[in-house]
Amino acid sequence: MIIAVIGDGFCSSDTARLAEEVGRLLAERGATVICGGLGGVMEAACRGAKSAGGLTIGVLPTGNRGDANPYVDVAIATGMGEARNVIVVRSAQSVIAVSGGYGTLSEIAHALKAGIPVVGLGTWQLSKGGSARRGITLASDPNEAVQKAVALANP
Amino acid sequence: MIIAVIGDGFCSSDTARLAEEVGRLLAERGATVICGGLGGVMEAACRGAKSAGGLTIGVLPTGNRGDANPYVDVAIATGMGEARNVIVVRSAQSVIAVSGGYGTLSEIAHALKAGIPVVGLGTWQLSKGGSARRGITLASDPNEAVQKAVALANP
Amino acid sequence: MIIAVIGDGFCSSDTARLAEEVGRLLAERGATVICGGLGGVMEAACRGAKSAGGLTIGVLPTGNRGDANPYVDVAIATGMGEARNVIVVRSAQSVIAVSGGYGTLSEIAHALKAGIPVVGLGTWQLSKGGSARRGITLASDPNEAVQKAVALANP
Amino acid sequence: MIIAVIGDGFCSSDTARLAEEVGRLLAERGATVICGGLGGVMEAACRGAKSAGGLTIGVLPTGNRGDANPYVDVAIATGMGEARNVIVVRSAQSVIAVSGGYGTLSEIAHALKAGIPVVGLGTWQLSKGGSARRGITLASDPNEAVQKAVALANP
Repeated sequence: MIIAVIGDGFCSSDTARLAEEVGRLLAERGATVICGGLGGVMEAACRGAKSAGGLTIGVLPTGNRGDANPYVDVAIATGMGEARNVIVVRSAQSVIAVSGGYGTLSEIAHALKAGIPVVGLGTWQLSKGGSARRGITLASDPNEAVQKAVALANP
Repeated sequence: MIIAVIGDGFCSSDTARLAEEVGRLLAERGATVICGGLGGVMEAACRGAKSAGGLTIGVLPTGNRGDANPYVDVAIATGMGEARNVIVVRSAQSVIAVSGGYGTLSEIAHALKAGIPVVGLGTWQLSKGGSARRGITLASDPNEAVQKAVALANP
Repeated sequence: MIIAVIGDGFCSSDTARLAEEVGRLLAERGATVICGGLGGVMEAACRGAKSAGGLTIGVLPTGNRGDANPYVDVAIATGMGEARNVIVVRSAQSVIAVSGGYGTLSEIAHALKAGIPVVGLGTWQLSKGGSARRGITLASDPNEAVQKAVALANP
Repeated sequence: MIIAVIGDGFCSSDTARLAEEVGRLLAERGATVICGGLGGVMEAACRGAKSAGGLTIGVLPTGNRGDANPYVDVAIATGMGEARNVIVVRSAQSVIAVSGGYGTLSEIAHALKAGIPVVGLGTWQLSKGGSARRGITLASDPNEAVQKAVALANP
């Protein structure tokens, strides 16, 4: 099983703690963590996954493997900038969004467009024409997020 | 000046009328219209632009120029699927979103991430942590949308 | 008709003269010139096309429209680095390679893979297992290159 | 260490034997194998790597993880068609080309452009202006190819 963790490249220590816990719990479940390979939420998720012996994949915006955070096992050097966001989510069976800015929002949208389930931890809420859109499955803590992401994962 | 018009590949006739009017008004202002090159909002915007003698660019998800709608002057055949959404908005000085689904949401997010102004006509509303995010400039009709998109356009 | 001109971003003045002549002759035939949007051969081809009133498209590796050479009418800001080479050739009905390095070689290969005719002016020769591969149609001057590129252009 | 193996998606059984041997020897050296994730040379290299307990990464042209060959451990679903060729080589420290067609030639060119060493086993020969270009390091069998690819690998 491969699950994406998405979120900001710079984040508060509270958000990093959530992301690290998400990464650890995913690895304990035997899931490979895929992310954008940089800092912040991405680094915290990878650090958590490595603490539990998991495998981590970082899909970098740059063309330089050396830009990956130190907890990435396999760096995919796309050189494609923000277009790599599509790859992060398309390669996953489900996605956990931890907080996040506009880059994360683009990943949420690409995932939902492709039919890949998204679980949100303190992330964006979407509405259109004044009514909320329920594309994102809410979770209130890392444990619930991981349980839902595993349960919802595409085959 | 080059301005993107984004929205669904399939849309209601009401939405198509809005998009066509947006395209026409942009061309009357001398702006080139860039879009995703397919049907629905994209085709309506191009049709409107051509009715006023404008230039239209279609950035296709497929690698086949022939997939462009008949009102596209220059088809850019990316073959990159949804990743082409990044290109549509990055190539524009501002963006007008007409309604739209998750693909459009990804384009809005990529634009805002890159600092490209987005004007919305009946499109997504964004909030995070329960409070609305004001990234999208609202417009209530095609004329207002075009005026704002021209006024906000990046240099 | 849309025809790509490919070659180095830095080139000798002799090579630039060839590329400029290619661009001019294409525009005189009514063809739109598409290229990688930067300097060297790309800039010379665009300058030639503009001197004859043609339309020029520059598909940039960066995400910044301002990186286009001054003779580009429509800058497509991909932000995808070398991956934009695929887009340059896929969007064209045929390709003219003027000299060129490894980036140009990648474009030749992508074009031939996609079934898009390539005409070569002083560019790479390909062989495999000791025997020459005839994928590239040779031309000895800009006039011959343009004639062949127009004649071979995909529908 | 991560090394790319590139070649045709359809190949002779002789070529497949070479690719499988390359994959096996790489895994025995502890190298991760990255490839385009499909059949032919790609599948043979992954099968060889798995026979020696290695880790295999498949960077797919499609957006569907299920398109990977059965010996791929981690499928990267780019949805970017031939543009994924850039990613395959940029993510590697060196590249081994086993025979191959125009797609492989594009990968060789992208690697050389990016300064990533390429070792060739019965693959393309390049020349320009009538003189051979020595970008590709020749090898006469899988053992020599792997030795050279390991020795030349970028840091």
